Amino acid sequence: MASFFEYAPDPDAPASQLVYTFGGAEPVAQIAPGTFLSTWTRDCFNGAVRTVDDLPTQVTDPRYLNPQTGPFYVEGAEPGDTLVVHFVSITPRESWGVSTTVPFFGALTSTPRTATLQAALGERTWIYGIDRAAGVVRYEARDSDLVVELPLDPMHGTVGVAPPLGEARSSLTPGSWGGNMDTPEMRAGATCYLGVNVEGALFSFGDGHARQGEGETCGVAVETAMDTVVLIDLIKGVPTPWPRLETDEYVMSTGSARPLEDAFRISQADMVGWVAAELQLSILDAYQLVSQTSLAPIANVVDNDYTCVAKVAKAHLPGVEPYGGIHARLRAAAAVWKRR
Amino acid sequence: MASFFEYAPDPDAPASQLVYTFGGAEPVAQIAPGTFLSTWTRDCFNGAVRTVDDLPTQVTDPRYLNPQTGPFYVEGAEPGDTLVVHFVSITPRESWGVSTTVPFFGALTSTPRTATLQAALGERTWIYGIDRAAGVVRYEARDSDLVVELPLDPMHGTVGVAPPLGEARSSLTPGSWGGNMDTPEMRAGATCYLGVNVEGALFSFGDGHARQGEGETCGVAVETAMDTVVLIDLIKGVPTPWPRLETDEYVMSTGSARPLEDAFRISQADMVGWVAAELQLSILDAYQLVSQTSLAPIANVVDNDYTCVAKVAKAHLPGVEPYGGIHARLRAAAAVWKRR
Amino acid sequence: MASFFEYAPDPDAPASQLVYTFGGAEPVAQIAPGTFLSTWTRDCFNGAVRTVDDLPTQVTDPRYLNPQTGPFYVEGAEPGDTLVVHFVSITPRESWGVSTTVPFFGALTSTPRTATLQAALGERTWIYGIDRAAGVVRYEARDSDLVVELPLDPMHGTVGVAPPLGEARSSLTPGSWGGNMDTPEMRAGATCYLGVNVEGALFSFGDGHARQGEGETCGVAVETAMDTVVLIDLIKGVPTPWPRLETDEYVMSTGSARPLEDAFRISQADMVGWVAAELQLSILDAYQLVSQTSLAPIANVVDNDYTCVAKVAKAHLPGVEPYGGIHARLRAAAAVWKRR
Amino acid sequence: MASFFEYAPDPDAPASQLVYTFGGAEPVAQIAPGTFLSTWTRDCFNGAVRTVDDLPTQVTDPRYLNPQTGPFYVEGAEPGDTLVVHFVSITPRESWGVSTTVPFFGALTSTPRTATLQAALGERTWIYGIDRAAGVVRYEARDSDLVVELPLDPMHGTVGVAPPLGEARSSLTPGSWGGNMDTPEMRAGATCYLGVNVEGALFSFGDGHARQGEGETCGVAVETAMDTVVLIDLIKGVPTPWPRLETDEYVMSTGSARPLEDAFRISQADMVGWVAAELQLSILDAYQLVSQTSLAPIANVVDNDYTCVAKVAKAHLPGVEPYGGIHARLRAAAAVWKRR
Repeated sequence: MASFFEYAPDPDAPASQLVYTFGGAEPVAQIAPGTFLSTWTRDCFNGAVRTVDDLPTQVTDPRYLNPQTGPFYVEGAEPGDTLVVHFVSITPRESWGVSTTVPFFGALTSTPRTATLQAALGERTWIYGIDRAAGVVRYEARDSDLVVELPLDPMHGTVGVAPPLGEARSSLTPGSWGGNMDTPEMRAGATCYLGVNVEGALFSFGDGHARQGEGETCGVAVETAMDTVVLIDLIKGVPTPWPRLETDEYVMSTGSARPLEDAFRISQADMVGWVAAELQLSILDAYQLVSQTSLAPIANVVDNDYTCVAKVAKAHLPGVEPYGGIHARLRAAAAVWKRR
Repeated sequence: MASFFEYAPDPDAPASQLVYTFGGAEPVAQIAPGTFLSTWTRDCFNGAVRTVDDLPTQVTDPRYLNPQTGPFYVEGAEPGDTLVVHFVSITPRESWGVSTTVPFFGALTSTPRTATLQAALGERTWIYGIDRAAGVVRYEARDSDLVVELPLDPMHGTVGVAPPLGEARSSLTPGSWGGNMDTPEMRAGATCYLGVNVEGALFSFGDGHARQGEGETCGVAVETAMDTVVLIDLIKGVPTPWPRLETDEYVMSTGSARPLEDAFRISQADMVGWVAAELQLSILDAYQLVSQTSLAPIANVVDNDYTCVAKVAKAHLPGVEPYGGIHARLRAAAAVWKRR
Repeated sequence: MASFFEYAPDPDAPASQLVYTFGGAEPVAQIAPGTFLSTWTRDCFNGAVRTVDDLPTQVTDPRYLNPQTGPFYVEGAEPGDTLVVHFVSITPRESWGVSTTVPFFGALTSTPRTATLQAALGERTWIYGIDRAAGVVRYEARDSDLVVELPLDPMHGTVGVAPPLGEARSSLTPGSWGGNMDTPEMRAGATCYLGVNVEGALFSFGDGHARQGEGETCGVAVETAMDTVVLIDLIKGVPTPWPRLETDEYVMSTGSARPLEDAFRISQADMVGWVAAELQLSILDAYQLVSQTSLAPIANVVDNDYTCVAKVAKAHLPGVEPYGGIHARLRAAAAVWKRR
Repeated sequence: MASFFEYAPDPDAPASQLVYTFGGAEPVAQIAPGTFLSTWTRDCFNGAVRTVDDLPTQVTDPRYLNPQTGPFYVEGAEPGDTLVVHFVSITPRESWGVSTTVPFFGALTSTPRTATLQAALGERTWIYGIDRAAGVVRYEARDSDLVVELPLDPMHGTVGVAPPLGEARSSLTPGSWGGNMDTPEMRAGATCYLGVNVEGALFSFGDGHARQGEGETCGVAVETAMDTVVLIDLIKGVPTPWPRLETDEYVMSTGSARPLEDAFRISQADMVGWVAAELQLSILDAYQLVSQTSLAPIANVVDNDYTCVAKVAKAHLPGVEPYGGIHARLRAAAAVWKRR
């Protein structure tokens, strides 16, 4: 029996009161497995970049970027379990979104890590119109007149739990705990599996994007506050080493690391092991099947570690229903709930 | 007016007589722009791996892997031009294809570059049935009974011209001259643009795959000999820095480098410059538009350099007809030719 | 006037009571700038690997590796200041040290990040005799009779402060806060400069090595408990972006990142900026001088990020006395203290 | 019995007539093993950058950079042999050397591979005075008055043979065949071991540096023409997978790859195998000994691949005389020759 829990963060709270780490923060609420959690998330700038004249380095505090909603203490979650987060709906709260360039941040600029002596690229802001009814995000060039209507495709850049080893990790970073993976696959209809590292899992999420290219090349998607409903569940005694995703059509493994080939390796090795276990294949047979069937969409090449997704159609994996078919059950429960 | 040229390599020639480099080989024929070139390519093993009992290290000579058909001298091609290769048809010649693991080759093993002290993974061969009529490639597990029918999706792993700076590069390596990019996007219906580095361009291709996952994880796709028709054209005085692709729906840039993020950067930076030029956008406006629209499918993470593709739907680039709309013209010419 | 503080950790405390993060731990003591701090550090295995029959995966808990002594709250330290740690003496506590291979850890093996499907290398333990009087560390081969006497060269692998952004980072990881840099340059006579990120700095250190090769190739140096004296000082209002080191002969910058070229870039860019500031050179002139004079010894290629050192002889930097000449003053104070 | 051969390239030959690849060029002369080869090499700019007003992009042709002297056909050399190149003397021909920054080239700038959208760093030239008698290289700042005298330390950046697989590789690139490794260890007194890939080996070298920092950070050392004498020898039937170096005090392995950690891995894995063979150690015992003794000076982080050196003192490898003690014999022969 699914229950329902609404968590409504204060829209007027100062940025300094939000949470910016996975791990190291006190839970804001406790929820039971089987709960529909309805809440909302701020955009990555805490709403401070609202016009083309607002530049991130002028209107935001670098300590307070990418605020998370949560963490939520999930009852019964213990290390070695798998937290299940099914995205029921992800809806932009506003009729606008924002993207920017940020000095020394992004894939096509030097950064504090890929350090060069060059001057920064220009800092600039783009405001996108969002038309939820039409399903459209409107790009407007700054230096010429081009306007392009792009499909609305809402997602969360950041979804995760507390990391292992007592670490607290910035919400700007992805890893085995999830975090800032920035994959467009994290959309409504997807189920995300996260290994639990601490009691209560301490799940949080944020960083809504009205849409995003693969790789998030300039480092900033179409950022927007989101109204989101997730259905939370828990699988006891089954570990998940790296975040996985499932939709009606695909199973996906993620890896986050630098260099990017290591993110690819992690995601593909996880998929090979997963396919071998699900189809009772030898490792070499699974390696072969994954090699000929896996898609490999890049998620981000801009965060503290880069993220890659291994994505295999279930049609190529006959009979696979991972984690005991929980995705289908949550999809059905979500459908019932939406019709209520 | 398109002409037609058939080049029929000798199927009985010993492997040592084929060509294994881009650059450094004499042309096998001369063709004019506007020519339909009909030919065939051997599989990457020169056909030597034919049963599950054939292991690459036992039946092949490491000096003779990935044979190319060509090179072809394209009349009038000079450094600074762009060679245009439209893939009219790519059809497996045989009713079977082959994949293998190869010791210390592939993404999920150490290699001579990512050198470790570990023992190699097992070497193993899989034979796939190919049903051209049904459009099916049949995977058969070696250690259990699983059989999976996968969609036939023929492509060429290797397409390129002679490199600059007097280099001759192994057909196992991708780069700015094309070469072993191993992207599944190189399928019939696609047009490939290659910058010319030497007189005559010296175009060659090979490495047919009945299908391939993105990343080509184990290093070997479903390898097979191919009957292929390409329509060759030439754009004078327009350079192309890295190989690009166009289909009816997408424009694509490639980059090949290590680490993989540099392949991503090359492909995305090329796409930003290309979009800026085509839409007369400022570089920052193009960076923004590409960031929100680009797909980033990985091509290979196994060759001497890794390859990444930046892929943007033309629907998001209003009015773009790159290279003067040549793709559409070649598509139309190919359609006429197919109906002949 | 230098004061003296002895902090004597309990040798019998269980491993679970030690500290394994930078950030996220309560200070064990408060010290004033100008204090000689005399203490000791456990080896990275908490002393659990003592004979060649002790294997790390059997006798240690993976949650409790690389224990730190500290953290120490330094009076007056605030974000934007520089903590100064001069190593007065580093002396092995025992007459033995230990090194091991660890499955899927080290530079010449696949790891959970550079993930492959290969089997692990063998796990094995080497016990080294340490002769403090003779200054010798004795290597003994396990599979044959070779014995080699190597110079004793004690150092600390781990030195750091709490990181910024509210993070708590595992003591297995290096970064801008210091941490597990694993550079042999961290020996007695060196002064380490660390940027302060939180009030009190929260300095800790550990991971003593009787000696270590550059890169720490197998991932484990000659690990040993250490009796160590450091002289702590504080420079107000002067930030230090990445850990720096100074000896009588050299100034050094460190960088920690993946891939390794980014660690190199960070360290070299920091050195260029440092040299430009110290010698009042333009950035390009400093870039040129550093390019022709810098040594670049690798520190580690095995930890969660890799560390590189940029090392320039002061003889090539006429008149440079960084941070107001504090290194010379601390050296002198340490000499007085040693003679006491 | 050593013979003597002088090869005097024409100083007036146009740049286009020089050789810029390893492989793909006809030999300029044939020499027998045991020959002292006396010759000279141009600087990397063909001598075209002579004053601070000469900028590389204005006075050089990008097709003609890093000219090589050679290739030399070594009698009897066959694939599977090892070519031995002992550097008897390396002496600057001129009283000046030159360094520059080059747009989009170097470690602290974006490049065509690490592609960003930023503007290039400024292009600038520094002229160094060279005083051979005093052993001094004089740095002069361009934007202020600083002058620093640095030790003269002549070396060759480029030393190599024809690569395998029919490749011809640009002299700007290092690899298993040697090439543009840019290690300061390639100085007089050192012996370089190179695996032979083609008949006659086709040895060439160039790219003299009056001195160079480790990493060659800005991409250009103190470039100068060199008068050089090498003593050439050949070891039949003994392969060398990657270039190795030996001096009176050290044995060294090199690796060249991207990312830099792979260059490290190659060099260390080669050293582990080498030490295991020489000392008849198990691989794990050699891994351990190398881990505690190896230095890891970076060579270059600017060329098409990066180069790292593994460097172990012979004092730590009791009794090691690699390649049958040939280094000592060549040293002795060179000493006799110098006294002639």
